[in-house]
Amino acid sequence: MAEVSGTRPGGRSARVREAVYDAAIDLYASGETEAAIPRIAERAGVNPTSLYRRWGTCANLLLEAAVSRLRATTPMPDTGSLRGDVEAWATGVERSLTMPDSQVLLPALVAARSTDASPAEHLLARRADLERMLAVAAERGEPTPVVEDLLDYVLAPLYLRALFRMPIETGLGARLAERLLTERAADPGRGAGRDG
Amino acid sequence: MAEVSGTRPGGRSARVREAVYDAAIDLYASGETEAAIPRIAERAGVNPTSLYRRWGTCANLLLEAAVSRLRATTPMPDTGSLRGDVEAWATGVERSLTMPDSQVLLPALVAARSTDASPAEHLLARRADLERMLAVAAERGEPTPVVEDLLDYVLAPLYLRALFRMPIETGLGARLAERLLTERAADPGRGAGRDG
Repeated sequence: MAEVSGTRPGGRSARVREAVYDAAIDLYASGETEAAIPRIAERAGVNPTSLYRRWGTCANLLLEAAVSRLRATTPMPDTGSLRGDVEAWATGVERSLTMPDSQVLLPALVAARSTDASPAEHLLARRADLERMLAVAAERGEPTPVVEDLLDYVLAPLYLRALFRMPIETGLGARLAERLLTERAADPGRGAGRDG
Repeated sequence: MAEVSGTRPGGRSARVREAVYDAAIDLYASGETEAAIPRIAERAGVNPTSLYRRWGTCANLLLEAAVSRLRATTPMPDTGSLRGDVEAWATGVERSLTMPDSQVLLPALVAARSTDASPAEHLLARRADLERMLAVAAERGEPTPVVEDLLDYVLAPLYLRALFRMPIETGLGARLAERLLTERAADPGRGAGRDG
């Protein structure tokens, strides 16, 4: 996962990776949906062969860049309470989805037809972040929803609007978080997504 | 809307349109993500000029084909009760998202970068269908949720899994519908998506 999510600490290889991500995203955002490895390498000032060796295809590279960027735009909050964390996270997702990069990267992520990289990696990365957030709340003894609830109640409605280019009203993330915390509080630990 | 959703009654033009949709979808599904109008016209046995005249670009044609197909795979039920209708619709959406065509068309729909056609048309078409379904229940005097609730509670979690190629467990649609009918029953007429 670390290899794909690109969240390892700095160093030269990390800086090069970020430069390559930037080049791939900029070219894609500028309409070069078929941006070739050589063009990306030229823009990033690196050797094309190293890109071919590391990513193989543009699809893999763009997918990894998208996963990394979308994750970086919504760091996991640590406010000291589950309500605070969930509302801050939901607001962060809402904000990130209204950023120009996201409006380009999210469709790119979903459209990726690469065989050796899957859009699911993005959701799995988010899921791992959220599970850590819920674990911290559970350690404090707070009743916590299951991670599927965070995906279904909050992430899914926001992503649906972003992916289909529907407006995302300011405050929707917080309202969806509030709905989850209110409605699932009555029945913690059950996710529609994991029954059966 | 009728022009785009392609749901007008039969006749020759409708048959030709369906043949063109089939050709566009087959070529796209077979990996020709840049399927050109001439290739589609050849496969559909029609004159390329008529396709250029009607759709202009492949993106528009594929988008219209995707909207039409995805809608056709889940006809609106009329079971005589809101619960029956919502559960039948949710189960239909779940089934349609596990069909091979959908797994190709949904990402294509979302990735469409056409300027004169938008993926939002798909959601707006679904939304109009759902509003009719809710209106029928309201006429029967049943308390009904708002259409945003159907999108947020049921459609969004199913689409999120389909778009990110995550597994959709059998019965998830019905469970999401049940959750909506149970939780929103306490508070009908309020959708997180339309407040504020």
